Amino acid sequence: MKRIAIDAMGGDAAPQAIIEGVLRARDELSDVVFQLYGDQEQILPLIGNADRIEIVHTKEKIEGDDEPTRAIRRKKDASMVLAAKAVKDGQADALLSAGNTGALLAVAFFIIGRIKGIDRPGLLTTLPSQNRQGFVMMDLGANAESSPKHLEQYALMGSFYASQIRGIQNPRVGLLNNGAEAGKGDSLRKETYDLLAARQDLNFIGNVEARDLMSQVADVVVTDGFTGNAVLKTMEGTALGILGQLKSTILAGGLRAKLGAWLLKPSLKVMRQSLDYTEAGGAMLFGVKAPVVKAHGSSDAKSIYYTIKQVTSILESQIVDQAKEVFQADQSEKE
Amino acid sequence: MKRIAIDAMGGDAAPQAIIEGVLRARDELSDVVFQLYGDQEQILPLIGNADRIEIVHTKEKIEGDDEPTRAIRRKKDASMVLAAKAVKDGQADALLSAGNTGALLAVAFFIIGRIKGIDRPGLLTTLPSQNRQGFVMMDLGANAESSPKHLEQYALMGSFYASQIRGIQNPRVGLLNNGAEAGKGDSLRKETYDLLAARQDLNFIGNVEARDLMSQVADVVVTDGFTGNAVLKTMEGTALGILGQLKSTILAGGLRAKLGAWLLKPSLKVMRQSLDYTEAGGAMLFGVKAPVVKAHGSSDAKSIYYTIKQVTSILESQIVDQAKEVFQADQSEKE
Repeated sequence: MKRIAIDAMGGDAAPQAIIEGVLRARDELSDVVFQLYGDQEQILPLIGNADRIEIVHTKEKIEGDDEPTRAIRRKKDASMVLAAKAVKDGQADALLSAGNTGALLAVAFFIIGRIKGIDRPGLLTTLPSQNRQGFVMMDLGANAESSPKHLEQYALMGSFYASQIRGIQNPRVGLLNNGAEAGKGDSLRKETYDLLAARQDLNFIGNVEARDLMSQVADVVVTDGFTGNAVLKTMEGTALGILGQLKSTILAGGLRAKLGAWLLKPSLKVMRQSLDYTEAGGAMLFGVKAPVVKAHGSSDAKSIYYTIKQVTSILESQIVDQAKEVFQADQSEKE
Repeated sequence: MKRIAIDAMGGDAAPQAIIEGVLRARDELSDVVFQLYGDQEQILPLIGNADRIEIVHTKEKIEGDDEPTRAIRRKKDASMVLAAKAVKDGQADALLSAGNTGALLAVAFFIIGRIKGIDRPGLLTTLPSQNRQGFVMMDLGANAESSPKHLEQYALMGSFYASQIRGIQNPRVGLLNNGAEAGKGDSLRKETYDLLAARQDLNFIGNVEARDLMSQVADVVVTDGFTGNAVLKTMEGTALGILGQLKSTILAGGLRAKLGAWLLKPSLKVMRQSLDYTEAGGAMLFGVKAPVVKAHGSSDAKSIYYTIKQVTSILESQIVDQAKEVFQADQSEKE
């Protein structure tokens, strides 16, 4: 049995969306026990059949705008904190939350702890590409400042994830840079480039540019958390902006445009699905001692369901245990 | 008379697109003399009426893949180099090129020279927003590494540009960061935040996130060149990716989708125009002693025409002269 500790109170639509997603996953995944952390008065009415569902009751929770480190220090009984402690104590195998990202990073670092040999755990997710395969990007913002060594570790973790979870053989690893030629970028990129090029265990294809990410220029894209966060949010903002623009143009376009839009509806739906990467799950915080996955704050039941499936894939692949061995060995060699 | 030195050989469609754009601008702008630098054998046949057009013949040119600093040292008679020298020597008032960006930065720095008091000139352009007003972003990649002082200067230059060239009164200046709250980001962002907040001559609105740029969250967005470049290219790549996806979905959607697309054609055209910021011109390298503007490498005649109009607006506003006074004064105060 896999045991997943779930912060039932985190996210914009919690606890409803969380519970609905859990119920759907529970009916499909027979080897998972779901530990729900949160207010039982709110949770219980949403659950019919309680098979393989455990509720750990707490009234306290971390809000979306709480200052992360202060929140986890003061709210010792918050649903997210208790869920992390369960993972730390071996009562659960993985942690899932759609709540405050900074707080989730903080409980992961301070309660669950880093894997030995990994300096900075980072956030990794799968982003959409035009050929629908998608690419893995890391770090998406766990760390605002990074060293070449950190980026090297992101490359290894990202490559691990792409091969073990996404089934891509020998994934192509690219370094996000301001030009494709070698020697481009700031000193962080230049030094990282040399570290990556020297590794035999990576299929490093060199620098890649942000313009080409959606064209599947690489299967794994490595960057610092500040840039990763900016790129991720630019993709979101641009996609929403264009679709919004399309909508308002259609609304302003009269009967002809409305009829055209109606005829195009099935195609637009297909397009939206291809851009919607809900099925790839949430963002994994890779580098801590157990799988920790952040679902989007606006997750609905479907996103939660897919994120749970992602967590079970991560548990089945045992990539966290593998990472522990690899990075510990890497560390020992250097000592 | 304004005199614009134009690199007739730079860009994917040079010299044809450049000359066509020049002819269109020449017929409209009666107070501009156009100095065309390049191969007269190629240029002359494209020009009918040579009114206010001067050709400075040279066979040498810088290619798109030339290493910038080496190219400007070795190709002393390249069209771009001669055009920059004309500006340096006062024979022309501004420089326009659609050629190698790195080489254009290099001729601007080394031949035309920095404004006293500005440490790092940066690239600035107007990007599209949903309300069609657009926002100014700086630096887009002139410098891969930046200090808080550099970002402070970008804020001043960007604010200058937004008010003088784009006519926005008291433009709202935002610092691109990985969260909207004060105190977010790496040390570069934190220190820059304090510098910007302390300035009385800026309408600083705090941190802004990349997700909100297209919603016109700010009129001027300040960032380092590495991040600016990544954000700009992500916007381009995402927009192209989505429009490409829309096209392929329509092609796969059979007769219904094709009829819908035909009906929607006028609306899609309006949408594309609203995303197409050709009319806002190219990217200005702000911080050198004369206006230097980079048109997109793939510029057609229309883009060149609008970029020339932008150059004339810059000359008319005298913002470069104003910047010289302001930054020199800023410098003297500190000495």
